[in-house]
Amino acid sequence: MLGNCIENVRNGAPLVHNITNYVTVNDVANVLLACGGSPIMSDEPEDVEDITSICGGLNINIGTLNKRSIEAMYLAGAKASELGHVVLLDPVGAGASALRTNTAVGLMDKIPFTVIRGNISEIKTLSSGSGTTKGVDADVADAVTEDTLNGAVSFAKALAAKTGAIIAITGAIDLVSDATRCFVITNGRPEMGRITGTGCQLSGMMTAFVVANPDAKLEAAAAAVCTMGLAGEIGWERMQEGEGNSTYRNRIIDAIYNMDAATLDAGAKYEIR
Amino acid sequence: MLGNCIENVRNGAPLVHNITNYVTVNDVANVLLACGGSPIMSDEPEDVEDITSICGGLNINIGTLNKRSIEAMYLAGAKASELGHVVLLDPVGAGASALRTNTAVGLMDKIPFTVIRGNISEIKTLSSGSGTTKGVDADVADAVTEDTLNGAVSFAKALAAKTGAIIAITGAIDLVSDATRCFVITNGRPEMGRITGTGCQLSGMMTAFVVANPDAKLEAAAAAVCTMGLAGEIGWERMQEGEGNSTYRNRIIDAIYNMDAATLDAGAKYEIR
Amino acid sequence: MLGNCIENVRNGAPLVHNITNYVTVNDVANVLLACGGSPIMSDEPEDVEDITSICGGLNINIGTLNKRSIEAMYLAGAKASELGHVVLLDPVGAGASALRTNTAVGLMDKIPFTVIRGNISEIKTLSSGSGTTKGVDADVADAVTEDTLNGAVSFAKALAAKTGAIIAITGAIDLVSDATRCFVITNGRPEMGRITGTGCQLSGMMTAFVVANPDAKLEAAAAAVCTMGLAGEIGWERMQEGEGNSTYRNRIIDAIYNMDAATLDAGAKYEIR
Repeated sequence: MLGNCIENVRNGAPLVHNITNYVTVNDVANVLLACGGSPIMSDEPEDVEDITSICGGLNINIGTLNKRSIEAMYLAGAKASELGHVVLLDPVGAGASALRTNTAVGLMDKIPFTVIRGNISEIKTLSSGSGTTKGVDADVADAVTEDTLNGAVSFAKALAAKTGAIIAITGAIDLVSDATRCFVITNGRPEMGRITGTGCQLSGMMTAFVVANPDAKLEAAAAAVCTMGLAGEIGWERMQEGEGNSTYRNRIIDAIYNMDAATLDAGAKYEIR
Repeated sequence: MLGNCIENVRNGAPLVHNITNYVTVNDVANVLLACGGSPIMSDEPEDVEDITSICGGLNINIGTLNKRSIEAMYLAGAKASELGHVVLLDPVGAGASALRTNTAVGLMDKIPFTVIRGNISEIKTLSSGSGTTKGVDADVADAVTEDTLNGAVSFAKALAAKTGAIIAITGAIDLVSDATRCFVITNGRPEMGRITGTGCQLSGMMTAFVVANPDAKLEAAAAAVCTMGLAGEIGWERMQEGEGNSTYRNRIIDAIYNMDAATLDAGAKYEIR
Repeated sequence: MLGNCIENVRNGAPLVHNITNYVTVNDVANVLLACGGSPIMSDEPEDVEDITSICGGLNINIGTLNKRSIEAMYLAGAKASELGHVVLLDPVGAGASALRTNTAVGLMDKIPFTVIRGNISEIKTLSSGSGTTKGVDADVADAVTEDTLNGAVSFAKALAAKTGAIIAITGAIDLVSDATRCFVITNGRPEMGRITGTGCQLSGMMTAFVVANPDAKLEAAAAAVCTMGLAGEIGWERMQEGEGNSTYRNRIIDAIYNMDAATLDAGAKYEIR
């Protein structure tokens, strides 16, 4: 089932508009190309409405935001929503500063996001309007574990119901939920946290997956999470002695480039609750 | 002949000022270093005139433009022209938005570019003042093929005559033309389109090549195109099972780093029309 | 002794706020993760005081500065100093433009930097208030060599005494000095200069080292220099035929990822003057 979702990306080659941070933007572009999508970046208010109009989806990532890019996020989000496009929010660092928290919450108030994807601390911050993080990483106290899984699934479903968005919470255990069903996914490797931007990359790829699968958005979002995690596993297996996080980054993107439906279906580890 | 052009880059180590997008800027810097040039980036209006004055060439790339960087492009372009420096325009996404099209056309009106390099859709947009693209990629309907080659060569020569610039149109077949001669180049691999920024990288490198070869600018621009395409072929031959676009990116830059005159002369595939 | 410094980084996982250029920012983030630190980037004036407050150190790098980011540097620098955080200045391109020179000198006037790290031309510019560079690389005439070493050591100590900062001057021979002791370090490879941003990467990593070693700041700064240089040596040994600067970049970051105290202690090449 999930394998079909990546085939649809490769066949449809969805164009994705990204308003994203300058730290990880190159990797986001290469991951979008690796999975079969096509990236375009623009964050100037006078440019974004035109650009988002020719795309199928919009990926808004609030890392390294500034006043100009925030204005662009509101304009592009409104235009994309008006056109019925997929719009994803990645609330990088929500909880780490008032500006980030307020921007994420403000965007949620104005834009009917299709998907919201973040780590557990960021998503909790969006839910409550305030929170704590360790910079751009989740607070250990918030982590989703076997012990806290039931509560986390209920939290994800409730937030999906409240917002109307698919909620994707990523970490050691990933949750991808709408109001009624929650994918609990266990693909991935802890070493992925030692590479900058695997979350940003996932958000870009997830946007493409949801655009290319309009009748199966929840499955598509889950398929993107499984693709990223499985690529992390495949890339890790290929690591040679003396290699580290920089080569691992390349190996993960390479594994996405080579991912096909059969590999994804065989390697995806999830249950639906 | 073309091999001599890269030797001159390695001997001259030209300093190139880049006002370029934040998506591919790191690769542009590393490609400039790989070919023997030296990169510097600056896009603040108060900074760019000083910076461009100490350089030999200026590479203006309009991807991820904003109002501040547009102002910087005009200021730097004017200063570089006044100093007789090589100035290159890469009209990324011209045709995809009014701001990008207007900026590219407006810059062409004020700055006597030495070279203009883009894909066929972007260059057609500059020629007509409007156009269509698939985001930052060329529209398939515009593609230069064996069937449309004669017309495309005439188009390139005419635009070169009209603008006074060398026109470089890159795709499956690349054209590098002044008003009288057109290099038709067939180096490269289709998989290069699955890496973000090979066009941006080429524009940076081409600026260095033209700076280092003031008496053979057309040959220098063609040599840069052949170097990029040949590096794409050499990089592809070195690909191992399981590798994809991220490693391919590294292998191409590595191949540029190792390119010498003899390899370039032996591997360049072109005719002059 | 120096090996202990990297162990403290791995154990403490210091969060470092970076206001840095968009050319090399991704590598700075991955190097911080490789050495055991944690990066966060923010350059919006309304965001930086919150962000720097949750961090242990602040890395200010003036490459690709603009008026907004300059304002952010002053605000973040003041807040970080007020909180007693480590604050590092990397004066990229000081001497190449009036704006860069004035910004670096102006920041030094307002912020009591813990460390200032640059190439010899940049540091001389800060010392005198003016200077010359070859873009972002040191002027050959300024190079620290065996012949000029005694004078350079005296210069570094005098500038450290005058500014109250640890002065790190990197090149073929690296100097890391406070007012009384100067580490003279000879790790590294000349080919590191063919990769963009090894200096920026070092500044990010050095910030983490100094944060994690509050009682041995000079040793920590020297340990960061040795780690970078030794990683350059280890990465070079692992280079395969046909590889170049792009793969070398990955191999250096990988070597930092795998660096441990014993390897650093065995490989560090320095004397103290």
